[in-house]
Amino acid sequence: MYRAPIEDIRFALEEIAVMDGLKTTGAFPELSSDLTAAILEEAGKFANDELAPLNRPGDLAGCKLEDGVVTTPPGIREAYAKFVEGGWQGLQFPAEHGGMGLPRALGAAVMETLQSANMAFSLGPMLTFGTIEALIAKGSDEQKAMYLPKLMTGEWSATMQLTEPQAGSDVGALRTKAEPNGDGSWSISGQKIYITWGEHDCAENIIHCVLARTPDGQPGTKGISLFLIPKILVNEAGSLGERNSIRAIGLEHKMGIHGSPTCVMEMTNAKGWLIGEEFGGMAAMFIMMNAARLAVGVQGVGIAERAYQQALAYAMDRKQGRAPGADGEPPHAIIHHPDVRNMLTTMKAKIEAARAVCYCCAVAADEAEYEEDEEDRAYAKRREELLTPISKAWSTDIGVEVSSLGIQVHGGMGFIEETGAAQHYRDARIAPIYEGTNGIQAIDLVGRKLSMAGGAPLAELLEDIRQTVEDCSTSSNPELPKLARRLGPAADALEAAAKWLIEPGRDRSDMLAGATAFQQLAGEVTGGWLLCVGAVSAQRFLKMGEGDPAFAHGKITLARHFAETVLSQAPTALSGIQCGAGLLADDTALGA
Amino acid sequence: MYRAPIEDIRFALEEIAVMDGLKTTGAFPELSSDLTAAILEEAGKFANDELAPLNRPGDLAGCKLEDGVVTTPPGIREAYAKFVEGGWQGLQFPAEHGGMGLPRALGAAVMETLQSANMAFSLGPMLTFGTIEALIAKGSDEQKAMYLPKLMTGEWSATMQLTEPQAGSDVGALRTKAEPNGDGSWSISGQKIYITWGEHDCAENIIHCVLARTPDGQPGTKGISLFLIPKILVNEAGSLGERNSIRAIGLEHKMGIHGSPTCVMEMTNAKGWLIGEEFGGMAAMFIMMNAARLAVGVQGVGIAERAYQQALAYAMDRKQGRAPGADGEPPHAIIHHPDVRNMLTTMKAKIEAARAVCYCCAVAADEAEYEEDEEDRAYAKRREELLTPISKAWSTDIGVEVSSLGIQVHGGMGFIEETGAAQHYRDARIAPIYEGTNGIQAIDLVGRKLSMAGGAPLAELLEDIRQTVEDCSTSSNPELPKLARRLGPAADALEAAAKWLIEPGRDRSDMLAGATAFQQLAGEVTGGWLLCVGAVSAQRFLKMGEGDPAFAHGKITLARHFAETVLSQAPTALSGIQCGAGLLADDTALGA
Repeated sequence: MYRAPIEDIRFALEEIAVMDGLKTTGAFPELSSDLTAAILEEAGKFANDELAPLNRPGDLAGCKLEDGVVTTPPGIREAYAKFVEGGWQGLQFPAEHGGMGLPRALGAAVMETLQSANMAFSLGPMLTFGTIEALIAKGSDEQKAMYLPKLMTGEWSATMQLTEPQAGSDVGALRTKAEPNGDGSWSISGQKIYITWGEHDCAENIIHCVLARTPDGQPGTKGISLFLIPKILVNEAGSLGERNSIRAIGLEHKMGIHGSPTCVMEMTNAKGWLIGEEFGGMAAMFIMMNAARLAVGVQGVGIAERAYQQALAYAMDRKQGRAPGADGEPPHAIIHHPDVRNMLTTMKAKIEAARAVCYCCAVAADEAEYEEDEEDRAYAKRREELLTPISKAWSTDIGVEVSSLGIQVHGGMGFIEETGAAQHYRDARIAPIYEGTNGIQAIDLVGRKLSMAGGAPLAELLEDIRQTVEDCSTSSNPELPKLARRLGPAADALEAAAKWLIEPGRDRSDMLAGATAFQQLAGEVTGGWLLCVGAVSAQRFLKMGEGDPAFAHGKITLARHFAETVLSQAPTALSGIQCGAGLLADDTALGA
Repeated sequence: MYRAPIEDIRFALEEIAVMDGLKTTGAFPELSSDLTAAILEEAGKFANDELAPLNRPGDLAGCKLEDGVVTTPPGIREAYAKFVEGGWQGLQFPAEHGGMGLPRALGAAVMETLQSANMAFSLGPMLTFGTIEALIAKGSDEQKAMYLPKLMTGEWSATMQLTEPQAGSDVGALRTKAEPNGDGSWSISGQKIYITWGEHDCAENIIHCVLARTPDGQPGTKGISLFLIPKILVNEAGSLGERNSIRAIGLEHKMGIHGSPTCVMEMTNAKGWLIGEEFGGMAAMFIMMNAARLAVGVQGVGIAERAYQQALAYAMDRKQGRAPGADGEPPHAIIHHPDVRNMLTTMKAKIEAARAVCYCCAVAADEAEYEEDEEDRAYAKRREELLTPISKAWSTDIGVEVSSLGIQVHGGMGFIEETGAAQHYRDARIAPIYEGTNGIQAIDLVGRKLSMAGGAPLAELLEDIRQTVEDCSTSSNPELPKLARRLGPAADALEAAAKWLIEPGRDRSDMLAGATAFQQLAGEVTGGWLLCVGAVSAQRFLKMGEGDPAFAHGKITLARHFAETVLSQAPTALSGIQCGAGLLADDTALGA
């Protein structure tokens, strides 16, 4: 059972991330609150009714590989056909390329519902998004004409092929080779691992995006190029031709997302074409990757939301013991036990905080592309750059934490597979790993994003946070100044930590030793801030008598809980960030 | 691959928990450092060579139930026979009952190695421990004579049967009925769920300890009695007689510990005998339960240690990227990356902290039984009572956290089942649930243990902690005063939080709302304190030139890392504990 939380999603999109602000860019003339609501309703229906019921059966059945053919779990082919029919794949892409011309932020919200409903299924479309982004940005006109229309409908899907056994986080160590054929095409050979939806039976063609090294490519990342390798070659007229020699030769046995085929791919002189410039592979990859990183962050939100809904339903139904002061009464539903309520409130508050971070990142990505003014675009780009690693890492950590709490709320039932809570916990665990481990995100955050543009991205964020501190402090609702009393010191702590990390002369090892702790702090402060933004908005509704007052009160409550239990901890975070590489240098301590 | 960490275990047992102090009780005349070392070596060998290799095969094969007969995974029967042969089951029980007469603390250390090697296997012996404890404390002389000898060797195993579908944490809701047969025996009927090792093919008999209600038993926990129900009835001469009507009718499909048969048990007029007094079921249960709670805490340590060893080995072997400042060199092992080292150091420090907490709890349990002086016994009992919920809950949370970090260290490989890291993560997740969920432990801690004996248990603990602050402050090694600077404020924070929770007039809901956060703080401060105790001891070795100085430095490093990253956070913990039930009362916030 999953019900897309349309009201919560709309609150995050419209009141916190202020997606409607995109209208002033002129790029989304049709965007309106009604349209957003209608699209989310429709997506929610698809997620609830078509995808969610296939989640557990897909976990049980898994994928099968026989003679290079991958069979997805029962029902997935049909669901994918409906996904194509619904036009969901092209939602967030420009109309000129065949998309629906709506914001990425709305696309992220739609994806959240699919990921909640069926994380394994949603990975297929997610990978296609990345390839579409890369082709729009770097593809030739011919490539766009040949591939985008079918990718945009989802009739063809796509993959992103970076990893090799010796080249994971260290992408530059890859060995896949591309030799020129002399006719503009290339002949690519090598093996790739962990290829999500690398082969399947849902789409009539698969467009593989593969990183490889050309003969003149120097070692490391600088010599890498990105190639487009269709599973089935496409004739000039657009019809399908010969089968290309890129094949799935193995499926991984994973702890979760069993419904998603994770393939070992082999290319033997597979025919491919450069996407963008030779040696421009990393730049092209980062276009796919940034889209994917945000999408994986949203996945963390999605799986957490699914786990939450299941835990909430269980807690409202399961009767066990009595709430304090009710001895002698018949057993109460466990939601009345303070400890269970605390778990549920923690789950919900973290989900809403992570959702807000991800949607803000998506809106920033839209603004970075579509704002009319160049400075506005640059400002938004800085915000997007800063929020991308935070969205990815913090939200996926929350996916794991919340799905674990989901099990705990169930007690013994949570450990029994039939209940379904365990599947969310197993599924959620991959998200902190793929599309750049969360450790890689932390290095990106402190090593690049903090110091870029003279530190502007964080300085600008802090300015916004302090505006919210001000807004809360001066509110007539006495709950809001309480928020300010937590948010203000948390912002100071974040600023101090960043200052320490990028101080001139800071040893790089010390900086890297503090990266993950800083990333966590940045997620907590940003997430907490956005819940406070939501609380300010909720208070405005209350004051104006608009909307459901209980809903508005709920948003203020969640912000308060997060502030007291999470933001309140920020002032002591610095010591963990500062403790440095010195304390890590002791091999004997590790038994190494 | 698992290698019992004998040196680390001995350091925790002898230097931190000061097990040797038990010699003054006179109860353990043979206890010596050499004997401890010899027993741990032998247990380690059994764990490393016999049990560890069966861990993954057992996960894959699982248990089978056919016609009431449970078949354990290949190799488990033979391993169990060797366990019996080794005399491990009786290690920690008095010689007068057929045990080896060694401390529970040493038994806990032996169990840690078995639990690391094969958590699913170790659950069988763990349940037998509890029944032995209950029979020694509450059994009649005839029962002791009839059952203890075979339980003590492990030739017979035992179970603990509390849970029913409607009676989990709320034990008092159970419906299993016992009717007197008129000959001193009882006729018991009902169904129990989640019965660990409820049926299996390793022992020739199984002694079930079952909670049931007698005809005069009032509703709730006060009307409950504990019954001994042998799988096969035992004749007066001790030979096996008729099959009793208690049977496994189902096996649960669990996320982990697949090698452990978790049974649904049905009793239809099964023949049984009271253990202790009628209506004394809860008291008898708590004897089993307290032993089991500590054992489950040790399990958290064990599974975390196993996950750690695997992650460490991978990090030393896997080459990927270069450490800071080494551009252009061939790829380094990932252990040289600060973020990976940070994960490993966090894992190791938390394991050692949790191990120390559990072993101190075990030593306290031994002292509580064997100290000559009554006041000493009472003091030790208070310590045991305080440390039992902390050992159980904090260590099992660490089991989950560390096994999750273990996956993260592996990157993509961690999510692939063949690697084994995923199994630890799946296995570890049950420990925060069974033998009283960690939420139940938190209620026990704040609801009972904090206020017992006028608050003496915590006051005494704080006194010990402050002595260590003093010891560290005055050390000639400049690292130790740094420890004191974190430990002192952490102790103050713990004291302030406890004071707030049990203040006269404190609303019970507010207290319960803060229970889990307090429990976490109590674990962190206690664990951090014990690492500091270890550091003081290590410094003594360094000063006297005894032992391996690298080993001693390592212990100081781990204490420092824990102090900077965990203890340093204690001063802000109070707000999360204090936030109270008010912020949890909002149904709309939860979408409830």
